[in-house]
Order: sequence, then structure tokens, then C-alpha cells
Amino acid sequence: MTKVLVPLAEGFEEMEAVIPIDMLRRAGWQVVSAGMTSEIVRASRDVRLVADRLWKDINPSSFDVLILPGGAAGSEFLSQNGEVLDAVADFFRSGKIVAAICAAPLVLQKAGILAGRKATCHPAVREQLNIPTYREEPVVVDGNIVTSRGAGTAFEFALTIVEMVDGAAKADSVASGIVL
Amino acid sequence: MTKVLVPLAEGFEEMEAVIPIDMLRRAGWQVVSAGMTSEIVRASRDVRLVADRLWKDINPSSFDVLILPGGAAGSEFLSQNGEVLDAVADFFRSGKIVAAICAAPLVLQKAGILAGRKATCHPAVREQLNIPTYREEPVVVDGNIVTSRGAGTAFEFALTIVEMVDGAAKADSVASGIVL
Repeated sequence: MTKVLVPLAEGFEEMEAVIPIDMLRRAGWQVVSAGMTSEIVRASRDVRLVADRLWKDINPSSFDVLILPGGAAGSEFLSQNGEVLDAVADFFRSGKIVAAICAAPLVLQKAGILAGRKATCHPAVREQLNIPTYREEPVVVDGNIVTSRGAGTAFEFALTIVEMVDGAAKADSVASGIVL
Repeated sequence: MTKVLVPLAEGFEEMEAVIPIDMLRRAGWQVVSAGMTSEIVRASRDVRLVADRLWKDINPSSFDVLILPGGAAGSEFLSQNGEVLDAVADFFRSGKIVAAICAAPLVLQKAGILAGRKATCHPAVREQLNIPTYREEPVVVDGNIVTSRGAGTAFEFALTIVEMVDGAAKADSVASGIVL
């Protein structure tokens, strides 16, 4: 079973976490949300989620897919955390899927894996990403790196990841279940 | 400021709650999630949300908009709760917006407000809704009743409600912020 890790830092964008978590569980995957500093994590629009685990209690290398939700403050926290940056680099080097949405592609950049790679991000942080390979598309896949633009592209972001691992028929089935 | 009430019962669909809560807060509205029986509420795909309040501690009549998320178990709970059914009927009679998505239009039916009204719901409960005025559209508005089909139509559901109260420009601004 595909195992997915979703780190949650204070100020993460709640739709950008809950949509992938829900959609990938609908695909039959094992998804674990990991609170960076506490079990209850407050998101950018004050929704509070109870994380499945604490970051300190999980072993990132036991997972197959890493997904970073956006939200300005949440992404900023992740980009300042050495363990998260190490995990991003390790997933990338291992050929595992590393996915980031909205402001979170900045975390991939900070981890040093975006050089020469096509990627997208939220328009508000496009200048900070500042790469010549920027693409203005809802979801951009370059090898094992998946990036996306915002909560409004989160369904396509999640379905792209499902399709990369389990194929188009599974992705279509998940989309159909939610009347997308 | 427009005040929105979102009841959360165990088994609610997490995307169908979090998307409207987040989108309406982005519109500048005051949104209160109310746990029916506990502060921490487990959703249909095991995401746990911390409700803002408990249902027993709020006064539904002090709100302007009532939104019912779907999820089979969550909707079933709401449709068995007399206070929720009373709130649905009161909002309807007062001309306030009553909105339901996925399986939750069944709650509106149980409350007796769907007779002769156009409405939609998730395909899986279409036979249970069983009204001649059923419409297979992403979002259906009939007077102050708003219904929608599933998590995949939740953005349009939330934006329709924003537009009904604050106009198309505000809805466009919220959609643009999430790159929809």
C-alpha cells in the first residue's frame, strides 16, 4: 500500500491539506498527517486539525510520497526546518514522489531540488520562486517532483499523484466518487 | 458581517466542511463550526477537526446562513436530530440561506422544506431524495435553498453562497485567491 506523509505546520492552508489527504485515502492509500510541533494544528483560516502523529515520532524514510501543503506561514515554517529539508532531498534522491502546492514549492527550492526543474506555485510567491523553468499550469510534473498552484488546483494535484502511482482508471474512479 | 453555522457530526465529509468554512472566511464572513456531540469530530476519511463550539452552546437563530456538509454517517446523524431539523425549518421560514451538499439534502427533505423545490444531491442518494424536481446540476438554487452534489462541486457551492450575499465581484475575488 502506498504510504503518504503530510507534514502540518501552524498556518498550513487547510483545503490544501484536507483535499489530498481525503482523496488519497479514497484511493486506498495510507496517509499520515504529522504535526510539526503539536498534535492540534491551527491552519491559515483557523480550522484546527488533529494530526495523526507528531513529526518527531515518525520516520520519513518509511513513506513513499511526501506532500507539502501551502499556506504562507506553514510553508515558511517547513522551509526553516532542517529535518523537513533533509526529507525533501532524501525523497527526491530516492526517486519517491515529492509534491508541493501553493507556497510550498519554496520549500523544495530551499531543499535544493528545483534547479533546472519545471515547477509552478501560487502567483503570490512566483517572484520568490524565481526560476527560469517556471510554468503557469495547474499542476506541473517533472520526474518525481509535482507542484501545483493553490487550493483551487488541489483536486487536480491529488489526482495527478494518484494517476502517477495507480494509473488513470483509479484517478477517474476517485474523481467520479466526489462528482468532480 | 454574515454569520454562518456549520454543524459537524461524526462521519461528515471533511472536504465538504473545510472548503465552505475556508472559502466563506476568505470572503470575510464569520463562520462557526459546531460539534454535535464533542469538540473533536472524526470525519468520513478519518480527518479529525476541532469544532469551534459545541452545538449545545450556540443559538442557531443568531446566524444568517446554515450549511450542512455531507458524508453518509454525518448526514444521517443530522437527519435524526430534532434540533437540527428545527433549525433547518426556522432558517427556511425566515428567508435565510439553507445550504446542503452531497447526502445532506436528505436532511432538508426530512425537515420538510423540499416539497416542490428544485434540488440536487450526490448520485448515490438520488433515489432516497426521490423528488420530481431533482436537477442534475453542480449547484441548484431555489429561493433560499442551495443544494450541491459532492466534494467535487464544493468550490462552486461555496462561491454561489458568497455571490448570493455579497455579489459576483466578491465571489470572483475569493476564487482568484485560490487560483480556481
